[in-house]
Amino acid sequence: MRQIEVCLSPDLIHLYDVKDKIVVVVDIFRATSTMITALANGVKAITPVADLETCRAFQHQGFVIAGERNGLPAEGFELGNSPLSYVNQAYQGREIAVTTTNGTLAIEKSKPGSAEILIGAFLNLQVTANYLAQRDCDVLIHCAGWKGRFNLEDSLYAGALITALPTSHTFNCDGALAMEALYQAHKDDLSAFLHKASHAKRLQNHNIEADIDFCLTFNKFNIIGKLVNDKLIAQTVSTEQTILEPSSITSR
Amino acid sequence: MRQIEVCLSPDLIHLYDVKDKIVVVVDIFRATSTMITALANGVKAITPVADLETCRAFQHQGFVIAGERNGLPAEGFELGNSPLSYVNQAYQGREIAVTTTNGTLAIEKSKPGSAEILIGAFLNLQVTANYLAQRDCDVLIHCAGWKGRFNLEDSLYAGALITALPTSHTFNCDGALAMEALYQAHKDDLSAFLHKASHAKRLQNHNIEADIDFCLTFNKFNIIGKLVNDKLIAQTVSTEQTILEPSSITSR
Repeated sequence: MRQIEVCLSPDLIHLYDVKDKIVVVVDIFRATSTMITALANGVKAITPVADLETCRAFQHQGFVIAGERNGLPAEGFELGNSPLSYVNQAYQGREIAVTTTNGTLAIEKSKPGSAEILIGAFLNLQVTANYLAQRDCDVLIHCAGWKGRFNLEDSLYAGALITALPTSHTFNCDGALAMEALYQAHKDDLSAFLHKASHAKRLQNHNIEADIDFCLTFNKFNIIGKLVNDKLIAQTVSTEQTILEPSSITSR
Repeated sequence: MRQIEVCLSPDLIHLYDVKDKIVVVVDIFRATSTMITALANGVKAITPVADLETCRAFQHQGFVIAGERNGLPAEGFELGNSPLSYVNQAYQGREIAVTTTNGTLAIEKSKPGSAEILIGAFLNLQVTANYLAQRDCDVLIHCAGWKGRFNLEDSLYAGALITALPTSHTFNCDGALAMEALYQAHKDDLSAFLHKASHAKRLQNHNIEADIDFCLTFNKFNIIGKLVNDKLIAQTVSTEQTILEPSSITSR
């Protein structure tokens, strides 16, 4: 059996061996939800960069630049971090350079030796699970958190991804055990539960309630997001794999 | 309202401000459970020390030395890390020096500027909650984890302590939110759930199932464990405070 683990914060990633694993980076509010939305809406590629200045430099190369710090759009950037900016193929065919508070850092920290890096969101949960089930690799879910702290939304995504996975993967990791159990306990009131999260409250203060609701939509898109040569691109997944219902794997 | 936060690992403690807070350090399997058992059984004081060599040096001063690494007794030490060693007043009146894999490190990291350091265990959950309710301080629950990683038992203790607290404390911390919810979801099958934890499995391999069961006993002892001048001592708590039932605070 392949293994699945959950790292609850980029500040704990040094405790995990990412070598030869598929690392799924998740920053639900909102970096990876926005990236998946952009890719599903025809954006050609997304270059995640660590800081605002590096990101700005991409503008001269014809990139659209998107930046956010502390939940607010970065000054002088064309786009902030809202998934709704990309719907209706608004940036189809364009290349985007993006920097966010937590998400891009988590991607950077996932690189050394890993087999692949995916980005995950509720928006493409099942297709990501299907892809992982088809690949012969151990998986590490890397929650971006909030400035190094544990956060609820990324951790619950980890629980949802474990639940959505067929019997291909098992775990001996308390982070995986806890988050699968927490997801099971709250999957029927997930939106209400996640609205209590500290970052959701922060976003509510910024009047972007619509973003929160969008980020909590399940399986809206059928592509995975994958890092190839330092750019995130969309990839389709073959549908050969049988999709098991979560209820069939809860005895694990 | 006073605040309560949960830090899920000593490797994340740098993200929290411990200044003027009461820090409750918890290492359920087994450091803090063992310390509470020792203090409740008449041990005069416990000196937590970071490494085996420093701990050994205390033997010449008449201390009983107790040491554990990776769940096993340290070579040449009188005691390992089993709470059962201390029952029936086996070491009444003695002073103990102790070093463990995770617990003593978490105590050390809780010191800078904190108002008080307590050690917590299911064994004295309610009395610790009563004490916190009487003190006019914010609280940080510091989970010792396993070599820096999140672990289930310490995190569920955090959820249990939050649940056991009267309405005196509130939170804006996703760690507190998640662990309160996880405890609520599993409080009726807590022992079975915690037997799945990775460290419980590690201890089962060492044939110390009895220790696990003991550490998961609720409210066996009526003392709190408090660090005073670098020694842990027992303290009794006045019973003036009304104990609220957990069900009365779940609307928080």
